[in-house]
Amino acid sequence: MKRIFSAAIGCCFLLSACATPPGDTAFQTSTIDALLAGVYDGETSAKTLLVHGDFGIGTFDHLDGEMLVLDGTIYQIKADGNVYRPDLSIKTPFATVCQFESDGSLPLQSGSDFPAVEKLMDTFAPNQNLFYAIKISGQFQYMKTRSVPAQHKPYPPLKEVTKDQPEFEMENISGIIVGFRCPAFVKGINVPGYHLHFISDDRSRGGHVLSFRVETGTAEIDVLDQYILTLPSSAQEFAALDLSKDRSAELEDVEK
Amino acid sequence: MKRIFSAAIGCCFLLSACATPPGDTAFQTSTIDALLAGVYDGETSAKTLLVHGDFGIGTFDHLDGEMLVLDGTIYQIKADGNVYRPDLSIKTPFATVCQFESDGSLPLQSGSDFPAVEKLMDTFAPNQNLFYAIKISGQFQYMKTRSVPAQHKPYPPLKEVTKDQPEFEMENISGIIVGFRCPAFVKGINVPGYHLHFISDDRSRGGHVLSFRVETGTAEIDVLDQYILTLPSSAQEFAALDLSKDRSAELEDVEK
Repeated sequence: MKRIFSAAIGCCFLLSACATPPGDTAFQTSTIDALLAGVYDGETSAKTLLVHGDFGIGTFDHLDGEMLVLDGTIYQIKADGNVYRPDLSIKTPFATVCQFESDGSLPLQSGSDFPAVEKLMDTFAPNQNLFYAIKISGQFQYMKTRSVPAQHKPYPPLKEVTKDQPEFEMENISGIIVGFRCPAFVKGINVPGYHLHFISDDRSRGGHVLSFRVETGTAEIDVLDQYILTLPSSAQEFAALDLSKDRSAELEDVEK
Repeated sequence: MKRIFSAAIGCCFLLSACATPPGDTAFQTSTIDALLAGVYDGETSAKTLLVHGDFGIGTFDHLDGEMLVLDGTIYQIKADGNVYRPDLSIKTPFATVCQFESDGSLPLQSGSDFPAVEKLMDTFAPNQNLFYAIKISGQFQYMKTRSVPAQHKPYPPLKEVTKDQPEFEMENISGIIVGFRCPAFVKGINVPGYHLHFISDDRSRGGHVLSFRVETGTAEIDVLDQYILTLPSSAQEFAALDLSKDRSAELEDVEK
């Protein structure tokens, strides 16, 4: 969707030459607030997820690690820090995917950290009311991620789980950041702003991105103006939830 | 989606015998907060809307009246109180539709008003975290509706328009109420709770429902567990909006 960039001002934009892709759609299972409240039972299979996208992030049944989807492959970064390739029958309680087709790219300056990249992307993609898939390929001076361990019933809320989350620090590592920037109005449904996961080029390390510093890198975005939300209609835990509650503070706590 | 009713307790449920319909999807154009803020230029044509549903509600380009979609026909209830059948090239800045397939029905007691019907529907469809399409066919002792007049640029916010909204009172009128109950988490995107429009059986009167009292009637629901949101990606007015603002009070003001 290159047209939205026509009004963009500034520097260093290297818009791709491709036409508007046929489907600029983010597909999501369940809601972030259901996950925050401890609805960790998977409802949607990895196989189904791949029908709707080849690129994305999420988690797994019982909250068993961080999900990263890249080029149609699903990676599971577990709490032991290792990366697995789960069977496609595995289910997810929360994930967002799209068919990634780059609408534009820009180089990242050496030394750029997470806030600097966010700021640059905000300038690059000024319409805050659309969805953007984000792919950053590069060499990172530093990368800090986390994962989450599988939970047992009765499930604790996510903020209890992340209190003791395993964190992983990496230096001089090449890899790919995969994620989304969502508009403010998805508050309660998805994560407003940036939500990124990482996987190393050798597919041995990764996780939910907490911080990073770029050595060299390129950010690509895919502008998404359609959003599909599918809800766990048969899950009693979901049906019983009070989703009118404002869980913004919990989300902030869990994401950072 | 009959399975969610299996746990429902109580009386007078007359669940339909039909199987789960293939697509239980609410399709929506733009967001309610964009409409509240005065984004009244239509982006999606009525023709496109009908691809996604034969049943629903919304408004029209320039806020020119209330939309009601029933059995695949689009009705425009203008501020003059009359009902029109617009050309399908007409566009909408905000609408929600689905392919209506009844999942269950229940009779309404004589004398039931809007709050009583809401309460009954809440018992009938206890999962507050899904979407429900609602169709009430009946004879009404009383029906009060409103419409909105077409606006000119610069568009005022919706709460300014509805301050002087034309309202219509009807007695002993038969017709159909069409609308949705949306979950709390769509706050800012659609209308949490009930949002209903009305059209008389002779298709001469209607509007956005403010209050009513049933003589005889039947409520049918269609449970929707998938939600598609399509955004006006090329609209500068939409791109420029601050959609992080809480407009709940404005919405309350505008809906009642």
